[in-house]
Amino acid sequence: MNNNHKYGIVLHGGAGTILRENMNEELEKLYIKKLQEALDSGYAILEKNGSALDAVTAAVNVMENSPLFNAGKGSVFSAAGKNEMDASIMDGHTLQAGAVASVTKIKNPITAARCVMEKSAHVLLIGTGAEEFAKEKGIELVDESYFFDEMRWKQFQKIKEIQKIQLDHSDDKGEMINPEEPFKDEKFGTVGAVALDKHGNLAAGTSTGGMTNKKFGRVGDSPIIGAGNYANNTTCAVSCTGHGEYFIRNVVAYDVAALMNYKNYSLQEACNEVINTKLKQQGGEGGLIAIDKNGNIQMPFNTKGMYRGYKLQNNQTGIFIFE
Amino acid sequence: MNNNHKYGIVLHGGAGTILRENMNEELEKLYIKKLQEALDSGYAILEKNGSALDAVTAAVNVMENSPLFNAGKGSVFSAAGKNEMDASIMDGHTLQAGAVASVTKIKNPITAARCVMEKSAHVLLIGTGAEEFAKEKGIELVDESYFFDEMRWKQFQKIKEIQKIQLDHSDDKGEMINPEEPFKDEKFGTVGAVALDKHGNLAAGTSTGGMTNKKFGRVGDSPIIGAGNYANNTTCAVSCTGHGEYFIRNVVAYDVAALMNYKNYSLQEACNEVINTKLKQQGGEGGLIAIDKNGNIQMPFNTKGMYRGYKLQNNQTGIFIFE
Repeated sequence: MNNNHKYGIVLHGGAGTILRENMNEELEKLYIKKLQEALDSGYAILEKNGSALDAVTAAVNVMENSPLFNAGKGSVFSAAGKNEMDASIMDGHTLQAGAVASVTKIKNPITAARCVMEKSAHVLLIGTGAEEFAKEKGIELVDESYFFDEMRWKQFQKIKEIQKIQLDHSDDKGEMINPEEPFKDEKFGTVGAVALDKHGNLAAGTSTGGMTNKKFGRVGDSPIIGAGNYANNTTCAVSCTGHGEYFIRNVVAYDVAALMNYKNYSLQEACNEVINTKLKQQGGEGGLIAIDKNGNIQMPFNTKGMYRGYKLQNNQTGIFIFE
Repeated sequence: MNNNHKYGIVLHGGAGTILRENMNEELEKLYIKKLQEALDSGYAILEKNGSALDAVTAAVNVMENSPLFNAGKGSVFSAAGKNEMDASIMDGHTLQAGAVASVTKIKNPITAARCVMEKSAHVLLIGTGAEEFAKEKGIELVDESYFFDEMRWKQFQKIKEIQKIQLDHSDDKGEMINPEEPFKDEKFGTVGAVALDKHGNLAAGTSTGGMTNKKFGRVGDSPIIGAGNYANNTTCAVSCTGHGEYFIRNVVAYDVAALMNYKNYSLQEACNEVINTKLKQQGGEGGLIAIDKNGNIQMPFNTKGMYRGYKLQNNQTGIFIFE
């Protein structure tokens, strides 16, 4: 994977306890098909001399529009029974960035994040304010019912039931945690894409519905530049997925870039240090995808699985789910 | 400033266009008195073997409770005529962190941020959700009228008037920017403190009312771990103030620590690189305060002034406003 590629896109659809024994063949096919569709949509843009930003936006949009992933349509439910979504995007060429957090009516949060980057003087807009801005700029808003997904709703009901029982046994901090194995992948669900275009520009985008049954306006790492998302033409583009609190405290996405820039680590060494050493030592579960300025790619994770794939120049492509 | 000190606290009350000609003697005395009070309150804790976290919280509380600074009481008004506050805190020993964003009813946002760190499984809680959490945990909520300050209100009215005029001449991005010099210091107002305690533990805290006349749920760098605030016992503790968007995109607070950790820069070299090279080249105005694990301190800024001061072991103290 360390050959130089002149352009390409890498994406993830979330990391977690994704086990082959819990996956049926039909569902696996659906995931692979949708990941391929997302890769193809981004790759087509790159191939036609398009920008990394456009490729990332297109690929993330495909995953946001699919109920298979915890982002956009298919986002998990918060404790209030709502879909509260976060997203961010960064342009490695200009170092401009945009993000939205806790939005409930924006069909494609990554598109809104990009609009914040391009049409406001700000980086991060949150809540109804972000929605008001998006509306003013012509971003598509939808009724909250658009995000309803039967599978997610059942999951939410089940988790609430489990947590009700767990609460009796949990400490003060336990109330918002669901340590049940089968839901771990849902808890950490996030989608993201990174790309290098023919002009040598990098971009990264990340979008999520957050943590199932989250309370109190909890926001994870996805809309935080430096934590869940980062791009810089001098080093790399990174999009993360995992237990967001660990990714915020460890400034994960920027740390990969900093290790390359300041310690001359290769992309592989930097990703390994962050995901398999630092985070692992702390018990921080998750993974990331990254592409560097030379087209090297990495897709490390310290969980059981991560929906992931790449498509590089000359149509080299690969899609993976398990270890 | 590069002698080793075994403990100490450094704080800022915001950076910006703070000019001697705009300051009268009486007001200057008020600022100095309040900064001294904040330093003393933190220092007293450190002297008695208390924690850096307690010292930082106490010092920030003093500034939050004073209408002189843009944080807590005295916060500037958003476009909605409200006080929308952000804060964050980080423990350099455990690397735990807590933050709140866009809260309007919490008397001391830094105290709420600390509560998020210590009593939730999360790092960042926003809006009414954060307030609900704070209330559950017994954090003091106040009526929104508590934050009303006559001077800030007049400032807000004046800025709205100026912006109304400017809008006719501004581009698409200009609507939320107020480039009028006299208000720059208000625009970037933030308070923060960093401390090293006798146990060798570092902590950093930052609190702000954000940008005057801000719209659309804009959130700056203050509640973003890595951007406006960071602490790590292996390197340093940093609290920032300035044009938040630049601080987010440059991951400023973590970048200082990364330069020390990965490039063996001294605290002074790292601060200089970030504030006077990187940010200055981009036009990113602001400053930061920092203390490293050996008790070295830095208070760099690239604006006309920054309310700042330190108190180190043996009662060595200094308070400054202008260049």
